[in-house]
Amino acid sequence: MIISSANHDVDNIGSEMYRLVVELYPICRSITGDGIRASLRMLQQVVPLETHEVPTGTHVFDWIVPPEWNIRDAYVKDRRGERVIDFRRHNLHVVNYSVPFHGHLTLDELRPHLHTLPEQPDRIPYRTSYYRETWGFCISHNQFLSLEKGEYEVCVDTSLEPGALTYGELYLAGQSSAEVLISCHCCHPSLANDNLSGMVVSTFLAKELQTQTRRYSYRFLFIPGTIGSITWLALNEQRTNNIKHGLVVACVGDAGCMHYKRSRLGDAEIDKAAIHVLQHSGHEFEVLDFSPYGYDERQYCSPGFNLPVGSLTRTPHGRYPEYHTSADNLDFVRPEYLADSFDKYLAVIDVLENNRKYRNTNPKCEPQLGKRGLYGTFGGRKDADQYELAMLWVLNLSDGNNTLLEIADRSNLSFGLIGKVAETLLTHGLLEEAQ
Amino acid sequence: MIISSANHDVDNIGSEMYRLVVELYPICRSITGDGIRASLRMLQQVVPLETHEVPTGTHVFDWIVPPEWNIRDAYVKDRRGERVIDFRRHNLHVVNYSVPFHGHLTLDELRPHLHTLPEQPDRIPYRTSYYRETWGFCISHNQFLSLEKGEYEVCVDTSLEPGALTYGELYLAGQSSAEVLISCHCCHPSLANDNLSGMVVSTFLAKELQTQTRRYSYRFLFIPGTIGSITWLALNEQRTNNIKHGLVVACVGDAGCMHYKRSRLGDAEIDKAAIHVLQHSGHEFEVLDFSPYGYDERQYCSPGFNLPVGSLTRTPHGRYPEYHTSADNLDFVRPEYLADSFDKYLAVIDVLENNRKYRNTNPKCEPQLGKRGLYGTFGGRKDADQYELAMLWVLNLSDGNNTLLEIADRSNLSFGLIGKVAETLLTHGLLEEAQ
Amino acid sequence: MIISSANHDVDNIGSEMYRLVVELYPICRSITGDGIRASLRMLQQVVPLETHEVPTGTHVFDWIVPPEWNIRDAYVKDRRGERVIDFRRHNLHVVNYSVPFHGHLTLDELRPHLHTLPEQPDRIPYRTSYYRETWGFCISHNQFLSLEKGEYEVCVDTSLEPGALTYGELYLAGQSSAEVLISCHCCHPSLANDNLSGMVVSTFLAKELQTQTRRYSYRFLFIPGTIGSITWLALNEQRTNNIKHGLVVACVGDAGCMHYKRSRLGDAEIDKAAIHVLQHSGHEFEVLDFSPYGYDERQYCSPGFNLPVGSLTRTPHGRYPEYHTSADNLDFVRPEYLADSFDKYLAVIDVLENNRKYRNTNPKCEPQLGKRGLYGTFGGRKDADQYELAMLWVLNLSDGNNTLLEIADRSNLSFGLIGKVAETLLTHGLLEEAQ
Repeated sequence: MIISSANHDVDNIGSEMYRLVVELYPICRSITGDGIRASLRMLQQVVPLETHEVPTGTHVFDWIVPPEWNIRDAYVKDRRGERVIDFRRHNLHVVNYSVPFHGHLTLDELRPHLHTLPEQPDRIPYRTSYYRETWGFCISHNQFLSLEKGEYEVCVDTSLEPGALTYGELYLAGQSSAEVLISCHCCHPSLANDNLSGMVVSTFLAKELQTQTRRYSYRFLFIPGTIGSITWLALNEQRTNNIKHGLVVACVGDAGCMHYKRSRLGDAEIDKAAIHVLQHSGHEFEVLDFSPYGYDERQYCSPGFNLPVGSLTRTPHGRYPEYHTSADNLDFVRPEYLADSFDKYLAVIDVLENNRKYRNTNPKCEPQLGKRGLYGTFGGRKDADQYELAMLWVLNLSDGNNTLLEIADRSNLSFGLIGKVAETLLTHGLLEEAQ
Repeated sequence: MIISSANHDVDNIGSEMYRLVVELYPICRSITGDGIRASLRMLQQVVPLETHEVPTGTHVFDWIVPPEWNIRDAYVKDRRGERVIDFRRHNLHVVNYSVPFHGHLTLDELRPHLHTLPEQPDRIPYRTSYYRETWGFCISHNQFLSLEKGEYEVCVDTSLEPGALTYGELYLAGQSSAEVLISCHCCHPSLANDNLSGMVVSTFLAKELQTQTRRYSYRFLFIPGTIGSITWLALNEQRTNNIKHGLVVACVGDAGCMHYKRSRLGDAEIDKAAIHVLQHSGHEFEVLDFSPYGYDERQYCSPGFNLPVGSLTRTPHGRYPEYHTSADNLDFVRPEYLADSFDKYLAVIDVLENNRKYRNTNPKCEPQLGKRGLYGTFGGRKDADQYELAMLWVLNLSDGNNTLLEIADRSNLSFGLIGKVAETLLTHGLLEEAQ
Repeated sequence: MIISSANHDVDNIGSEMYRLVVELYPICRSITGDGIRASLRMLQQVVPLETHEVPTGTHVFDWIVPPEWNIRDAYVKDRRGERVIDFRRHNLHVVNYSVPFHGHLTLDELRPHLHTLPEQPDRIPYRTSYYRETWGFCISHNQFLSLEKGEYEVCVDTSLEPGALTYGELYLAGQSSAEVLISCHCCHPSLANDNLSGMVVSTFLAKELQTQTRRYSYRFLFIPGTIGSITWLALNEQRTNNIKHGLVVACVGDAGCMHYKRSRLGDAEIDKAAIHVLQHSGHEFEVLDFSPYGYDERQYCSPGFNLPVGSLTRTPHGRYPEYHTSADNLDFVRPEYLADSFDKYLAVIDVLENNRKYRNTNPKCEPQLGKRGLYGTFGGRKDADQYELAMLWVLNLSDGNNTLLEIADRSNLSFGLIGKVAETLLTHGLLEEAQ
């Protein structure tokens, strides 16, 4: 499989992905409940992912699948009966996983239940309380300051009941049972970059890979953050041996440059592949060392699994001021950035699919490339061109120890060129695959 | 044992150490003789160190313990009978280990016996002649220029006779027989930074450690430079196997920033510990590679021993103009710098004492910290705080391969925080000690 | 053997080498034929190299020794019968290995056979066509633009017939059968830096080494590029095991600074030796990583041989605008640069010859250098001088694992000093040779 971005109508894919972000945006997702179910159904319009329901109370390593949370309505009404805080206006207004509540409170009693961002006074923060039973509202700091004294009616019309944790999974079998894991979280309410961008890019990657001959098998996971990956790992422990490479997809729709966060292993093939792609992208980028904070790589890279899973993002979580606020909205994510991220992911997958190890069949001195029509006619020119140079590098380093990616890195040539040249040399019998 | 500088009255310790420097300063020490004996007696007022006497003529590897040197008086008198050079005014005036001499010399005959520093014309140099039988005087270059022609009476009232080499030793047994070696030289006459600062900081470290529960055993050596460490190593060869970490203490009282000189091994635990402490000190510092020149690390790090012994100093020997001159005096060393050095040494010892290797008891995925009260209540905040981050790092890297110090270095968090967090996790059964 | 440039009359050697360049310059060399034979005969005036003739058609790995090429004359005449392009004026005018041709062509028919350098319009390019049967002429672009329309008489009076490939070889046996390979190419026509400079420096190195006691054996190869090294390697495959170090000599007569291109191994002893010499030369220099493009190191470093062969040049091939043009002439190469290159090569050979591994016979603590007269008399000085420091380094690191070159690199002292000190210590029984 040679995947090249030239095969894709990039503008079109960017628009399609963005349209899906727009559709998903209003849904109030959480780590369980109907929000994530509705979201997965939308993705199923694009790819045939399966959904799994794991019952409340299931033990997953050190954790227990929590009660299912659903919300119908939530508000704070002032004395005049007006909804001064209204879940229907923005689903970030309610602390995610708030327990049901109805009552009348003075402003002083209400205040401890209100969350704001004093440094970003116009934005609503995103807050959750999955494992401690409480309720709360999130509002802009300016609104908070304008609240009048007096009594308010508070209604949190939610339910926390035995149910299930829902996640989506799509497995695309390849020539090998070795797997590439693509994982994204789907548990945030109206946050566009942090969660929706990852969901749609993963979905369209799956759609694209469906149509290709695949060396590797691909497993796409659409899961609630933390508890979702813990649940999947607990229920699929024996399958993790197949995972040879993995990427956690998140924050891939903003204007920032690409960031690659290394796996815990630090120099796994996925690390080299992603960094190679970024180095040859012609765009600015940043490489981050592994840290045990972030998204679900925290679980995949826990010491008991230590999987070769990195994370490829644009601006990483927590590094942009819109992060976990109402400003992570449909203006913050743009079709062209979604498309660019999609392309980078495909390029990384292209490297994984084509990265093999060869052995030069004429290891003693160079083979005569000219007699095979592989070399320029006239000698004496100042430099070999890139193509000829790439052939010499592949022949010189193909001693059975170096992968094409390692050859590309050592020669500072693109994997695309090195791969193309290797194919030509293979055709001419100058290389054979090494084990 | 958690040692923290907060336990100490730093100002007070600085003053106490400085007072001891003041008392030791006038004594004319050498590599043998009554000067070093008197000095060790002063240290015995603070800690119960033992003294050892190794007889002249004892073979110690390639060396022989030299005759014992003592001095009563020395001077050069002019025609008028005035002492123009007088040992009683400054003990640096006599070349250390000068043989006895009495006679009358012209200035021309005297000159080859006079040592000066032309580039620092006001200072008296420090010179020794341990292994070549000669005598000499050291004076300021300005005085040298002002000497009038004519005859001088020269008296060097010294003795070089069979006796002993004296050194001090203090052994503090710990839970383990593995030792930390703290070594300082005590053989210089009135030089405050080069020798006295190391002697007093070592003494007060011993005093402090006496009062603590110790994981390691500690061996303090108060020895003449070179011949002292060679003698100790020759007589205690079999004990060197116990030495797991070591530091040579010297030049710890001046205003310069801390310098750590690596052991010959280059990346021993003592090297990592000392560098970690300096990196997190908030002060400027410099790390120097090992070189076979310096103080007694030269012997500890000789290829036949190759012990993990580094050297933690302020401005290293030879790098300050006052070095080995009369300007290395009581003004050059200050209480606050002695106290700061003392603190840095304690911090390094703190790392050694608490640096262990653990194994995460829930290695598959993160344990649920929230249910144990170890995690912030509300999710969604921009960053975990340092404490939570430290917990995640310790859990993630505690796979039985990484020490806490290695975790602190990889996470760029302080050993203090990492150690505190590890203790908490241990209490909650989330870690177990690894072998 | 201690070789030092001080032994040589550098000015004189530069002039001698330059005179040989001047004599070799007019000859029309190629990869086979009388040009290379005549050139080797000139070198035989200086050193007794043997010549070998390998018949056309001999199979050498993936290649076949080509027909022998010789040229008597070649020209393009205009309508007036004037030679507008004339081989007798410059042998670069003919594409090297042009097949015989005689005929009348219009300018339009002639043009595809003309090679120029539009960006360097006054210079004649150097072009070859060894393995594709064609003919051509090389001219300045300005001349090309001035050619008038009309018919031209073209004569290429060459022969391509069964014959031989000729190369020169000089083997100087040393105490050991382990070899140092010195290889240069001899196949370019009138190009002074690219080929002649390497030939004369190699020749004078051989002349110099002839007079010396040699630890290593030395093999000098004077060969046509690519096909020559392939031929030698194919016919001497079993001998390559003896090659412990090697250098490809080329482009050593221009004003540029020295460049060392690493062997494929990257950190072989030859790599360390050459880089050490350049680092301590006091001159600017550059170190280049291995690449599979360049001169005959391409063959020596092919994966089936992977010999420790680097290349020491001044400005590398292709990096100077005169490269492979008529401007690489007798003005471009100067005696002083040839002499400087010669000196650098000798210095590298000096390192190889004297680089040994020793074991300190008193590994426990320092030996007492003073009693052997190896140490300054008076202690207390600010710094040991370089010589004493070098002794301490050699004693400290001579544990049987480090070569003198590694000690020189770690101590940042010159190999010359380290080697001299090691000899002294050996004399005093303080070192013994390690295996």
